[in-house]
Amino acid sequence: MGIGMITDFGENDYFVGTLKGVIKKINPQADIIDICHGVPSYFIQGGSYVLEKTFRFFPAGTIFLVVVDPGVGTQRKLLLVTAAGFSFIAPDNGILTPIFDLGRDVVVREIDQERYFLISGSSTFEARDRMAPVAAYLSKGTAADDIGTPSAEFVVNPDYHPLVTAPNQIEGRIIHVDKFGNMISNVPGKWLFEKLGGCGGQHFKVCLNDLEIDEYRQNYASASGRPFLLIGSHGNLEIAMNRRHAFRELKASLYQKFTILLS
Amino acid sequence: MGIGMITDFGENDYFVGTLKGVIKKINPQADIIDICHGVPSYFIQGGSYVLEKTFRFFPAGTIFLVVVDPGVGTQRKLLLVTAAGFSFIAPDNGILTPIFDLGRDVVVREIDQERYFLISGSSTFEARDRMAPVAAYLSKGTAADDIGTPSAEFVVNPDYHPLVTAPNQIEGRIIHVDKFGNMISNVPGKWLFEKLGGCGGQHFKVCLNDLEIDEYRQNYASASGRPFLLIGSHGNLEIAMNRRHAFRELKASLYQKFTILLS
Amino acid sequence: MGIGMITDFGENDYFVGTLKGVIKKINPQADIIDICHGVPSYFIQGGSYVLEKTFRFFPAGTIFLVVVDPGVGTQRKLLLVTAAGFSFIAPDNGILTPIFDLGRDVVVREIDQERYFLISGSSTFEARDRMAPVAAYLSKGTAADDIGTPSAEFVVNPDYHPLVTAPNQIEGRIIHVDKFGNMISNVPGKWLFEKLGGCGGQHFKVCLNDLEIDEYRQNYASASGRPFLLIGSHGNLEIAMNRRHAFRELKASLYQKFTILLS
Repeated sequence: MGIGMITDFGENDYFVGTLKGVIKKINPQADIIDICHGVPSYFIQGGSYVLEKTFRFFPAGTIFLVVVDPGVGTQRKLLLVTAAGFSFIAPDNGILTPIFDLGRDVVVREIDQERYFLISGSSTFEARDRMAPVAAYLSKGTAADDIGTPSAEFVVNPDYHPLVTAPNQIEGRIIHVDKFGNMISNVPGKWLFEKLGGCGGQHFKVCLNDLEIDEYRQNYASASGRPFLLIGSHGNLEIAMNRRHAFRELKASLYQKFTILLS
Repeated sequence: MGIGMITDFGENDYFVGTLKGVIKKINPQADIIDICHGVPSYFIQGGSYVLEKTFRFFPAGTIFLVVVDPGVGTQRKLLLVTAAGFSFIAPDNGILTPIFDLGRDVVVREIDQERYFLISGSSTFEARDRMAPVAAYLSKGTAADDIGTPSAEFVVNPDYHPLVTAPNQIEGRIIHVDKFGNMISNVPGKWLFEKLGGCGGQHFKVCLNDLEIDEYRQNYASASGRPFLLIGSHGNLEIAMNRRHAFRELKASLYQKFTILLS
Repeated sequence: MGIGMITDFGENDYFVGTLKGVIKKINPQADIIDICHGVPSYFIQGGSYVLEKTFRFFPAGTIFLVVVDPGVGTQRKLLLVTAAGFSFIAPDNGILTPIFDLGRDVVVREIDQERYFLISGSSTFEARDRMAPVAAYLSKGTAADDIGTPSAEFVVNPDYHPLVTAPNQIEGRIIHVDKFGNMISNVPGKWLFEKLGGCGGQHFKVCLNDLEIDEYRQNYASASGRPFLLIGSHGNLEIAMNRRHAFRELKASLYQKFTILLS
């Protein structure tokens, strides 16, 4: 069974390589897939976003190892969540919020069976010592019930979704900046268009810092050089500039708020 | 069958991870190989270069997914090209120019069988919705003829090769900067030495900005601290500095022209 | 058999992708694992460090391709070292120092059987032309004795370990900076605590530039905002700041020396 990894460990360090060794040592047949190691350091919401936008594309049964973990070594729990035919292993810090959103199909377990852990004497690399081994055993067929105990207490991030702050006003956040500098928000396009009664791109504008953006496009190449709005391939509202790095040019910051005004 | 990927998506984003999910869902046995995701954003010629210098090292039958696609979502075609025992999937924007150079063995098809596409409603991520699924089906044994229709019209990049601009003068371009700052040109060493009648490194010099470079070396370690010329491991003329980042120190820019004077 | 790669080639270039092609062409079944390609350019000791801290986590039999090679193309040898059930392929420049430390189990061979090399005419990419093919043949079952001849002469890096410079004084070095800016030293925690007679964190301090650091913690989250000391998950002494990039904030440099004062 495939194991997909989402972390803030970066590609340049050896943390990810170590996880791969740990997994292969337990299950040499494991098919390890690097989904993204470029989540900004400690940015839990960014990890949630990457997970939300990728997991559905993977084969049923895929095990996701999702590690953005500023609280490593403290008392926070480790979770094994099963939902929609997938498994998710992560620290209990709200990073699985979009999975909890999936509804009643979701089973949350606390990972408490220490016999699956590596013994290292360290308390700062639980991805290596606890989460990766558990993923490897799961991929070999160990049952979820052998690994953890169902738990009704877990952290949900209340801040992950956009807020309706006034009858015609929504507060969104920049939740991801892609390589091209496009700023992706936490506002689902479908949800936004429902709010608009389905009437589409010409009936809202975005206020970000001192800027008002009301140009709406279907793709990048048809846009002018100015900032424009787009529902990206991920389904969310995006602020972009054609062939320019919008995030840097507009001096935006990660997780900053912006306002959507409906008309 | 292996699927090798060359993109400008970067390693830090989740685009590449999404492609992997799409491919694995269609063909769990696919052997996906990251060749390079660091092509500078939108730099089609840089993607051509990476493809040209790597594809021959792969096993026969390898399928290459080559995505640098500033025109995504517009009317440009998607191509499936077979040549030299390999398959290449790419947008029709000239990126496959070095493959077209391979000659009469080359068969170009337009990918037009929509039954292989994902249905996403998006028009900005055709790598995910169209090119990756097609690669996955090819890797499972679907025939090229089932996927596309032979086409005699496709974009060739006229700018990809060096130009002879006067009897003893060649115009080249910086087509790649490696991690060490070495500047690799689009000038094949073998072609250059044929122009020189085979007489080698002491009979030409390079003019880049205000600089004349005429030191020629066989390897990096034997060079002085000044800029020098080398035929790199890739076979092309390269401008380098030993243990220094030539591209930054010489304030060069990507795809900039330089002149070779033969003597 | 798995092949793990540690290089300074970076993730953004196509060097690593080329090695993968070369390996797959010789052994399509090879399981190639990217351990780390982010070793700082030419920093041999950093490559040693990554190798030291990862190899034990991999399955027995894993073949490690370890390439930081500023002397590429010169007369330095290439080595195949077997130790502790693993194989290591690297240039003979001291990068395998932590493997030589493993003791009498270590067998060093000079790779001298040219029949396994690619013929490229190049002298600047021996990872592609020599080391990767040898790794691939090894992974297919070719015997170490068929690939190289035992050799008693090889380069050891005398600088890799910390030095006791006075009765209560140790000189260490910053050997790795992780993605979070934590500065990892070449000082093993276990060795340090033995020097201290096992009495732990409150009995030493670190002098780095003009700074004295004596706060000692078990994990990141429990620390104040000031620089603190920690034995990291890798087992070595580490200088860190909670959620801040210590390396940049303290204006440290890679491989710089610092002093440990025992009390």
